[in-house]
Amino acid sequence: MPANTVVDANRDRHWMQRALQLAASGEGYAEPNPMVGCVLVKDGHRIGEGYHKRFGGPHAEVEALRSLPSIADAESATAYVTLEPCCHFGKTPPCSQALIDAKVSRVVIAMQDPFPKVDGGGLKALRDHGIEITVGVLRDEAEQLNAPYLKRVQKGLPWTIAKWAMTIDGRVATVDGESQWISGPQSRVHVHRLRARVDAILAGMGTVLADDPMLNARLVDDDGKPLTPPRVANRLIFSRGRLPPRDSKLVCTAKEIPTFLFTSPFVDPDERAWLEQAGLVCDAENDSIEGVLRKCADGLHGHRPATNVMVEGGPNLMASLIGSQPEDCLIDEIHAYLGPKIFGGATAPGPILGSGIESLAVAPQFRLIMIDKFDDDARLIYRRQSE
Amino acid sequence: MPANTVVDANRDRHWMQRALQLAASGEGYAEPNPMVGCVLVKDGHRIGEGYHKRFGGPHAEVEALRSLPSIADAESATAYVTLEPCCHFGKTPPCSQALIDAKVSRVVIAMQDPFPKVDGGGLKALRDHGIEITVGVLRDEAEQLNAPYLKRVQKGLPWTIAKWAMTIDGRVATVDGESQWISGPQSRVHVHRLRARVDAILAGMGTVLADDPMLNARLVDDDGKPLTPPRVANRLIFSRGRLPPRDSKLVCTAKEIPTFLFTSPFVDPDERAWLEQAGLVCDAENDSIEGVLRKCADGLHGHRPATNVMVEGGPNLMASLIGSQPEDCLIDEIHAYLGPKIFGGATAPGPILGSGIESLAVAPQFRLIMIDKFDDDARLIYRRQSE
Repeated sequence: MPANTVVDANRDRHWMQRALQLAASGEGYAEPNPMVGCVLVKDGHRIGEGYHKRFGGPHAEVEALRSLPSIADAESATAYVTLEPCCHFGKTPPCSQALIDAKVSRVVIAMQDPFPKVDGGGLKALRDHGIEITVGVLRDEAEQLNAPYLKRVQKGLPWTIAKWAMTIDGRVATVDGESQWISGPQSRVHVHRLRARVDAILAGMGTVLADDPMLNARLVDDDGKPLTPPRVANRLIFSRGRLPPRDSKLVCTAKEIPTFLFTSPFVDPDERAWLEQAGLVCDAENDSIEGVLRKCADGLHGHRPATNVMVEGGPNLMASLIGSQPEDCLIDEIHAYLGPKIFGGATAPGPILGSGIESLAVAPQFRLIMIDKFDDDARLIYRRQSE
Repeated sequence: MPANTVVDANRDRHWMQRALQLAASGEGYAEPNPMVGCVLVKDGHRIGEGYHKRFGGPHAEVEALRSLPSIADAESATAYVTLEPCCHFGKTPPCSQALIDAKVSRVVIAMQDPFPKVDGGGLKALRDHGIEITVGVLRDEAEQLNAPYLKRVQKGLPWTIAKWAMTIDGRVATVDGESQWISGPQSRVHVHRLRARVDAILAGMGTVLADDPMLNARLVDDDGKPLTPPRVANRLIFSRGRLPPRDSKLVCTAKEIPTFLFTSPFVDPDERAWLEQAGLVCDAENDSIEGVLRKCADGLHGHRPATNVMVEGGPNLMASLIGSQPEDCLIDEIHAYLGPKIFGGATAPGPILGSGIESLAVAPQFRLIMIDKFDDDARLIYRRQSE
C-alpha cells in the first residue's frame, strides 16, 4: 500500500472513531433507532459534528450539518457517518438527500444499514449524485456499537442482557435463600443505570415472590436528588401459572409503570381480571420465553419495538434462555457482578439452574468486553461469541 | 504539621516504597523467611539497595551494604528497611549489628517483626547504639506484603490460597462432571507461576480420581523451554479413606516430587505399604484440614515450614475450609479464574460445596485485590478481610 494511502486510511479511522464516540452518546435515547454519529471534515479539520440524540429527533447527519456556522461550509467536505445514511421518509426526511443538498464531496461510512427501507439505498442515492463513497471503516466497532439494533432488525429478537450478582464462589443466594445484598451500593448504582436505558426488564415469578422487586431504575445525582432516566422500561413477568400477589410492589405500581404478565390461559380468570383492573397487561398466550422476546422486538401492545431487554432472573428463568445448542442461546450479553463473599453449599443456587448444558462442547461461549471494580465488587461484561 | 515534616514524611514513604518493591522480588525464594528490602539513602540520594534474595542467603540490609562501593559510604546514611532488622544469629549474623557497625545514623522501618527471636529486639539494639529510629512508614503495605509470613508466625498456620476456575455462572464442571478446560492457556500459565512459588499444593482425593493431576509447576520461557521454578511444592492429598490409584501420576512421580497422603488409620495397610514403597509419605493420624495445615506450617517430616499453601480443590475439600463463623475461615486468598462460558444446571457443581454458610451475616468477607484479563478469562484475586 503506498504511504499516502496508509495516511488516508489512518485519517479515516481517526474521524470515524470520533463519530462512533458521538454515536454512543445516544445510548438509551435513540432506540429503537440505531445510534449514529457524524463528523464533517474539510481540509483536514473537523468543521462540524452531531449525533442522533433521541428517537424522533434529527438524525446525526442533520445534527452535524446544523452545527456548521453556514450550510455552505459543507461544500466539498467529507462526512464520516457510523451507519449508512437513510434514504426514506420516516420521522425525518432522508439524510442521504441532506448530504447531497449540502454538496459534500465524500461520505465515509462504517457499515451498511440492514434496515429493509435502507439496506444500500442510501449508498445508491449518494453514488448516483457523484459523491465518493468509502464503506467499512471501523466496521467491527460500528457493528459492536449497534449490535442490539442489528439483532432486532436481522433476527426479530431484542438484545438480551442477563444481569446477576453472585458471590466469588458463584452463588446468587445462600442455602437458605438469602440473597440481599450480595453486591454493594456502587454496583447497584450501575444496575440502575442499565435499567434506565433498556426497553424492558424481564423477571420470573420466583423472583417476584422472593424479592418483591420494583424492577425500575432509580437514578440519583451526586446530591441524592432523583434524575429522569433516559427511558422507562416495561416490566415483564414470566409465569406459567402463579399470579403476582395483589400487594406486591409490581401490582401496586402497575398504573405508573407498564407491567406485562406472560402467563397461560389456565390462570384464575377472576384474579386475572382483578390484576388487569389494577393496571397489569395480561398475555395468556402461553408463549415460550423466545416467543415473549419476539413480541418485545415487535413492540408490545402499542409500545415501541424493544431493542434491549434486561433479564434479572431468577436462575430458572435464566435456564430457559440457554437452549441446547450454543446458537440457541438467547443471552447476548451478561453483566455479572461478583460480591466479595463466599457462601458455599451444594444446594445454594448459582445464577443459572435448570438441567444445564449437555456437554462442554455445546457450552455457549462469550467474549469478555469490560471489567470494572466498584469497591470490592467486580463487574464483568460479556458478549456472546457470534457463531 | 510543619511543612518540612510533611516533606520528610513524603521522602520516607518514597524510599520505603522502593524498599517494598525490592522486597517483593524475593517472593517464592525467601520463604520461610519474610521478604525484606533495604534502601540506603544519603544527602537525598540512594547510595545502595538490596533485598533478601533467597532463604539461606544474605539478608536485605547486608545486600544493601554490600552494594556500596565502600562500606565507609554507609556512615551517617539512612537505612529504609521493610521489616525490623534481626538481632539473632540464624543462618546469617544479626542485621541490626551490621547497620550499627556500618554507622548509619537513622533507620526507618515499616513494621516490627513479630518473630519471637526478634520482636523488638532489633529496634532495641539500634536504639541502644544511639541510632534514630522511625517505625511504621507504609506499615499496611509491608503487612500486606508479608501477610503469609505473619500468619505463619502469629497463628501457626500457612497462608492458604484457594484457586479455582469456574464459568461466568460459577460452575467448576458441567452436570456430567466435565471440567477441562474452563480457563484458557494464558490463565494456566499464571496458575503454574503460582504453583511455582508456593510451599505446598493441597487437593482432595476426588480431584485425584477425577483429573489424575500432576499438581506441579510447569514453567516455560517464551520459546517453550522449561524453566526452573523458584521452589518445588510438596503435594498434599487429603483423603479420609480412599487411596490414590497405583498408576496415578501422583503415585508414579512420588519419588521425584514429595507427596504426602493425609488419611485415616483404617486404610488398607498393604496398599498403604505399597504406596509408601512407591515414595508417598502416609500420615494416618486422621487430621482435620486445619490439623494438616498446622503440620505444614510447622514443617512436614523434615521439610521447611510452609508459608504458602495452595488449595486446588475439589469443591468438597474447599467446603471444609470455610468454617461456621467468618473467623474460622481458613482461606486467606482466592485466585478465581472465570472462563468465558456458561454451563447452567442445578446439579453442576460450584467451587465450594458442602452445607454452605448458615446465613448471609456469617459469610466470609474478602477484599478484591487485583483483576487481570487473560484473553477472555478474568482472574480475580481476593484476600480475606481481617476481623
